[in-house]
Amino acid sequence: MSDAMDDAQEMVTYEELANLECEFDDLDVEIIRKQYFLSKPLYAKRKAAVAKIDGFWPLVLEESPQEIDRYIQPSDSEIFASSLKSIEVDRFELTSESDDTVGDPRSVSIKFEFSENEWFSDRVLEKRFWWRRASDGWTGLVSEPVNVSWRKGKDPTKGLMDGAVKLWQARKQNGDMQKRDLPEFDHMAKITQTWNGDNTSFFTWFAFVSSRRWVSQEESSAAVQAEKERRKRASQGLEDGPTQLPEDDQLEKQVEAHEDGDTLATILAEDLWPGAIKYFTQAQEAAVLSDEEFEEDDEDEDEDEDESGNEGELVDLRKLAQGVDSDGIVDASNGGQPPRKKRKA
Amino acid sequence: MSDAMDDAQEMVTYEELANLECEFDDLDVEIIRKQYFLSKPLYAKRKAAVAKIDGFWPLVLEESPQEIDRYIQPSDSEIFASSLKSIEVDRFELTSESDDTVGDPRSVSIKFEFSENEWFSDRVLEKRFWWRRASDGWTGLVSEPVNVSWRKGKDPTKGLMDGAVKLWQARKQNGDMQKRDLPEFDHMAKITQTWNGDNTSFFTWFAFVSSRRWVSQEESSAAVQAEKERRKRASQGLEDGPTQLPEDDQLEKQVEAHEDGDTLATILAEDLWPGAIKYFTQAQEAAVLSDEEFEEDDEDEDEDEDESGNEGELVDLRKLAQGVDSDGIVDASNGGQPPRKKRKA
Repeated sequence: MSDAMDDAQEMVTYEELANLECEFDDLDVEIIRKQYFLSKPLYAKRKAAVAKIDGFWPLVLEESPQEIDRYIQPSDSEIFASSLKSIEVDRFELTSESDDTVGDPRSVSIKFEFSENEWFSDRVLEKRFWWRRASDGWTGLVSEPVNVSWRKGKDPTKGLMDGAVKLWQARKQNGDMQKRDLPEFDHMAKITQTWNGDNTSFFTWFAFVSSRRWVSQEESSAAVQAEKERRKRASQGLEDGPTQLPEDDQLEKQVEAHEDGDTLATILAEDLWPGAIKYFTQAQEAAVLSDEEFEEDDEDEDEDEDESGNEGELVDLRKLAQGVDSDGIVDASNGGQPPRKKRKA
Repeated sequence: MSDAMDDAQEMVTYEELANLECEFDDLDVEIIRKQYFLSKPLYAKRKAAVAKIDGFWPLVLEESPQEIDRYIQPSDSEIFASSLKSIEVDRFELTSESDDTVGDPRSVSIKFEFSENEWFSDRVLEKRFWWRRASDGWTGLVSEPVNVSWRKGKDPTKGLMDGAVKLWQARKQNGDMQKRDLPEFDHMAKITQTWNGDNTSFFTWFAFVSSRRWVSQEESSAAVQAEKERRKRASQGLEDGPTQLPEDDQLEKQVEAHEDGDTLATILAEDLWPGAIKYFTQAQEAAVLSDEEFEEDDEDEDEDEDESGNEGELVDLRKLAQGVDSDGIVDASNGGQPPRKKRKA
């Protein structure tokens, strides 16, 4: 295979392409930053509007795409339906609109607000993800595990989340975020082994750390600086393209509470959050249709229309949906689908 | 159903949501505009780089996502592999960077450049799509059919594209783009009936007009103006949300050369075009892997490595791929897949 290495022309071209891809990535980041500041007032306006609608966010989650929906267990649906008040996404590192060197637009926080409920005592669960670069070139989102104060006997993860928080704290106390010689490591590895890859609850996502390993702010800053210098040399034709491809750390995976927490965060922030009104409208439409089915099935029953509305937010949804239906406004492109959770149940 | 119509609070909220969605759409358009001007220099740089690589664009098409790949027949692959020189996407209505009222960023042109070949005499096939709003509220991309000068006996669509161009011209001469009382309409309907929905060639896409019906610049301008006024009134609380939902025109579908030409244009412009380097890299990797398989299978054959390279561009690809392989640069995340066309053949 190496006898083609002397074909210098193509080699140079290939490195050029790899470095070009880096430039395209930089541009994407710049555009996320602009989009954030441009859309901020509109999201504030949306927040005010949807606050008037009972069960807006639980319904959006009901209609969420498969990549999110697959993590929402029936017990999670119950918690959301009865007590989720709002979801809010923020690019928390972007503190200055005028200075585009401050913060990374890919760092994201997702905040869930709850009313008083029987499962946990928290009112706000906020999950922050930092975009970091590791010393070996890996880039991605890392997060700290968020503690949920489950009420007695109500933790669907049976100690998994608590184990993640305890391991995190033990590593922090030891000043070594990769330390494995800890009772908390063994304990966490044992819990995940018990679950054997089954996701027990959407809430395990709050305990996610990294798809690979934790990367600190310090490590990331140094790696970003080194990458800047590499690209400067590359632009002068002095160096090869970026070298990446770090191998996965299988041992660290043993103590990770969620198998895909970074991807889930990205889909929540880049699909569910901007598309919330669309998903809500789909939920309304589905309710209109299943309401019609319901009326056909029980035509002689002369009960009021809230009769079947024993699932909290569906009562309000139904009222809304009727108004919409007689107005003919709803986009019918997604027609005929009952809400997914209903089909499951 | 109408007995909930008096629930004014939710009704207002719903219209508010629908109008908010319009505002989000406007913002998206604004961001496409910014992105276009920001990325223009980088695309020019990429163009210069990929021009040095033989078979870059044919390889990108080979690795294109399923939504594009499904329209590329083996005969199309042959044409692309032997003579496609470049693909270029432009937002042709954006003629002024400083004035953001000029042109719609969603209008897009896709230009295919070919070398001299045995199939047709054209060197450039450029397909333009205009973003238009119809009088009934429909919005989307419409296009004029592009004539391809097929050499004798070489037209894989057996007159379909020619029929589309002739109908277009006849309607234009009659000053009525919906006119059906025309021999050209009957002729086109007969051809599409013969093909019975089978797509015979990627090139039929060049004959696409609309997923619904043609919408002229004049109709669109008037409809955009009317929509502006509606939204102005809506912002003052004087009117309902947008009314849409025009019904599909089944008769017009009978004479449409391509069933999904607008979607295909969008995927070409928003996925294939920005992702070209990624798809090319995937093609290289696939070639490295299939090359290794080849070498395992034919270990005792002592021929030079171009021996299996009887498919034009794959010879160059192989040289490239070898360099890349020994450098360890290629992202292995898509590993193990031979080029799709190879599997088909």
